[in-house]
Amino acid sequence: MGRWQPGARERLEQAALDLFLEQGFTETTVPQITARAGLTTRTFFRHFADKREVLFAGEEPMPEQVARLMAGAPRSLGPMELIATGLGPAAAAIFEGRSLDYLLRRRAVIDAEPALRERELRKFSLLSEALEQGFRDRGIDDLTARLAAEIAVTTFRIAVARWLDQHGDPDLPAIIDQTLAAMRHLVGTPSA
Amino acid sequence: MGRWQPGARERLEQAALDLFLEQGFTETTVPQITARAGLTTRTFFRHFADKREVLFAGEEPMPEQVARLMAGAPRSLGPMELIATGLGPAAAAIFEGRSLDYLLRRRAVIDAEPALRERELRKFSLLSEALEQGFRDRGIDDLTARLAAEIAVTTFRIAVARWLDQHGDPDLPAIIDQTLAAMRHLVGTPSA
Repeated sequence: MGRWQPGARERLEQAALDLFLEQGFTETTVPQITARAGLTTRTFFRHFADKREVLFAGEEPMPEQVARLMAGAPRSLGPMELIATGLGPAAAAIFEGRSLDYLLRRRAVIDAEPALRERELRKFSLLSEALEQGFRDRGIDDLTARLAAEIAVTTFRIAVARWLDQHGDPDLPAIIDQTLAAMRHLVGTPSA
Repeated sequence: MGRWQPGARERLEQAALDLFLEQGFTETTVPQITARAGLTTRTFFRHFADKREVLFAGEEPMPEQVARLMAGAPRSLGPMELIATGLGPAAAAIFEGRSLDYLLRRRAVIDAEPALRERELRKFSLLSEALEQGFRDRGIDDLTARLAAEIAVTTFRIAVARWLDQHGDPDLPAIIDQTLAAMRHLVGTPSA
């Protein structure tokens, strides 16, 4: 093991994002990232499996965290109550320590590259599966559990996109509430 | 141009699905597919860009078809009415000429291979974008348009999955209705 590099992970993330934005994700190599960060390739691979994972690192435990949070919530909460009360704290945990600037830059990189967009979709698909299982474990029937999981993920994705579009104003919990209210209004409208 | 091969496309699809299921998607090559179908590689590439596209061919025009169908629907229909009345015919158009057996085998191949699952997610993401634009073109506000598009795609995906799980019984329009009713019940339940 090499010596400890204080802040190495953050410096690598910063350098990678800068390079992805300046010259494109595909064109950027790991040696370029480490050169920009003033660190070695060996240090890079101690923190990340590859350059793509710089953008997704730290997100692998999300499904397990979701499962634990759901198991710990009061049994009296129905699925929509759980979504309404749980999405804000879940978002805060997911984005902890991330600046708005970082999240906006990260999104710009992902939007520019189809392979990264597919990776992002897969992340949300895995999250939806964890939520679905969590709802089932709370005694919700299969169809409702699947729908509630998709509604939770959809609300989260749409609210975060709007929050970033609006540069963080109003705050994310307020936008989550607006999004859920719009969902209720839409789905509650009588149909044919 | 080689001579016309009657049913070549269907024979190639059948051979490809058989081989994907027998030996795996990754292990299967285009020459193996054409050998099984009794056709040439040249014929294969006249129909498909690569082996992956055998599973997705014919789906590229879906976003344009969705846009045209939405533009042609009566302006008096609200978003949920449009979803409730439009998903059944849309599904019938998408699956026209496909047997239940083909669709079940296709799903088994996609479920077994992460890269194919990501491709499938991207297809639904593109479809959602087309729906969102279609709702906006009907004068629906941005947030509601985005939510309605996601609800349409989610309902479609979940209903088709259940329809396949149940081997086609009851029929897809009935399962779409059940899924929308469950969605209304779930979202309409008062929350905190």
